[in-house]
Amino acid sequence: MNTKLIGAGFALLTLRAAFAADPLPSWNEGQARQSIVDFVAKVTKQGSPDFVPVPERIATFDNDGTLWAEQPIYFQLRFALDRVKALAPQHPEWKTKAPFSKLLSTPKEENVAVSEQELMEIVVAAHSGMTTEEFEKIVKDWIATAKHPKTGKLYSEMVYQPMLELLAYLRANGFKTFIVSGGGIEFMRPWTEKVYGIPPEQVIGSSGKLKFELRDGKPVLMKLPEINFIDDKEGKPVGIQQHIGRRPIAAFGNSDGDLQMLQWTTAGSGARFALIVHHTDAEREWAYDRKSHIGQLDKGLDEARAKGWTVVSMKDDWKTIHPPSR
Amino acid sequence: MNTKLIGAGFALLTLRAAFAADPLPSWNEGQARQSIVDFVAKVTKQGSPDFVPVPERIATFDNDGTLWAEQPIYFQLRFALDRVKALAPQHPEWKTKAPFSKLLSTPKEENVAVSEQELMEIVVAAHSGMTTEEFEKIVKDWIATAKHPKTGKLYSEMVYQPMLELLAYLRANGFKTFIVSGGGIEFMRPWTEKVYGIPPEQVIGSSGKLKFELRDGKPVLMKLPEINFIDDKEGKPVGIQQHIGRRPIAAFGNSDGDLQMLQWTTAGSGARFALIVHHTDAEREWAYDRKSHIGQLDKGLDEARAKGWTVVSMKDDWKTIHPPSR
Repeated sequence: MNTKLIGAGFALLTLRAAFAADPLPSWNEGQARQSIVDFVAKVTKQGSPDFVPVPERIATFDNDGTLWAEQPIYFQLRFALDRVKALAPQHPEWKTKAPFSKLLSTPKEENVAVSEQELMEIVVAAHSGMTTEEFEKIVKDWIATAKHPKTGKLYSEMVYQPMLELLAYLRANGFKTFIVSGGGIEFMRPWTEKVYGIPPEQVIGSSGKLKFELRDGKPVLMKLPEINFIDDKEGKPVGIQQHIGRRPIAAFGNSDGDLQMLQWTTAGSGARFALIVHHTDAEREWAYDRKSHIGQLDKGLDEARAKGWTVVSMKDDWKTIHPPSR
Repeated sequence: MNTKLIGAGFALLTLRAAFAADPLPSWNEGQARQSIVDFVAKVTKQGSPDFVPVPERIATFDNDGTLWAEQPIYFQLRFALDRVKALAPQHPEWKTKAPFSKLLSTPKEENVAVSEQELMEIVVAAHSGMTTEEFEKIVKDWIATAKHPKTGKLYSEMVYQPMLELLAYLRANGFKTFIVSGGGIEFMRPWTEKVYGIPPEQVIGSSGKLKFELRDGKPVLMKLPEINFIDDKEGKPVGIQQHIGRRPIAAFGNSDGDLQMLQWTTAGSGARFALIVHHTDAEREWAYDRKSHIGQLDKGLDEARAKGWTVVSMKDDWKTIHPPSR
């Protein structure tokens, strides 16, 4: 008899018991929570007509506004702004060249108006001429120190506690959880494993082109100032197919940028689940939807209602918003 | 006490015992086999200076010539040829347009000379105007029925038994196994899970562009006649970074197309492993290297010897080549 394995068995039972007690402690009782639990129950019940084998339990999550906050400006824009400011002395041409000029000439960062396409231009261009490993270090340093202007929290503390529980709950039920974000793939990967439990190979995002080079005989991957892929809107199902090669059975988003991912996910055969996080909590977080420049939710809200997708009201469905500060 | 879990514990012990007895039964005793076993032992031994945590145990495998055969022509070229022939009546222009004209006018398929770039052109163009799901079905039908012209085996039976054992051995030791192939990603994914135990999300390959569309309100992904990415040579480390976002600690190839992947893998810090399958067995398989049009191994062989990478001689190191026919 191997006592170590039995111990592991007991640990597993304890874990299951904990989940049985309350897998989603930060979620209020209600329709949203119930729809999640019902879906997981039916796809994991052996013999059920809706049963889905473990390898096909693919769940995809948007990041900005779904797993962490996105106000008053996308956090990655804040990161890019810090980079552009740091690099500006080496790039005098940025003073007159949009979108850099917009960033450098606007005293209040919240007032900078750039499209997601422009955001990607800033991100890609501001980081050209460095290797993937150099970039990874810059991101790690930033995420460990930069703080949100309103809350004073680290950005990694601006994640949503109920969504962390949801990720863990799905994984405990055999799901493989992926991020599918309009944000930069290389911006997310250095910290998603620690913060969300999602390893780099399960992160899909927008990207710049890379080039393999030998530098003094040592191979490096250079980040080129050229967009490779925009993982937003119609790009999300494309990114999913390219990276996963399998249609998700559950997808989670918060904006019209996620609409095509939710359409693609729910159009598959068998049991499907789509959820939209609706930012309704002006007191504890932010309230915005149809008219917002960031995380606009308009068509998605109509389609969710028409198709019976789960719409989470942050105000009503979530007991807490962020995890306690460390 | 949960008897089911204890049962699982016993099954695991039995499995471990089996592996302890002989994890690689089709490998002859010798340097190649020993180098694999030594590497796995040192990276999995807790407390060893070479220990690598499970999430970082990434192993990447080329496919053509490494996991399955590639003579007398790449199997995907055979597939593409079958498709081009089937579609030719709808494309009269192919009669005079290279590379299609080459395929259609050469009676003996083995004599068709196309570059890998041309192969991709054929594959991408011959499959435009269909959805990813339609393509998947075509591949599944082909792989289930098409037979190798020399051996009469199904192509899925032309895989290398020693490499199947190696994949299983690495996975039993906490490795995540990926395919990184110049072949088409959508050509491999429909069968790699069944044949190699590698799920679609762990398959990296060359690809065509995709476009999300609503067809009668139903979302589809159309395969466009345009190359998206060539996952060969310098492309392999790029494909690895884009998909995995983490440098492999072990890589396996057979040709100069794998050289950059092996360089990238071994240039990381800590214990690293690189292996080249050398086709030396003219009797049981094929013998080719420096002068071959398919799977050319020239620079790779020199670099392997200079750097002490493992070079497997199929003739000397492998007891058997293919698994027994079903």
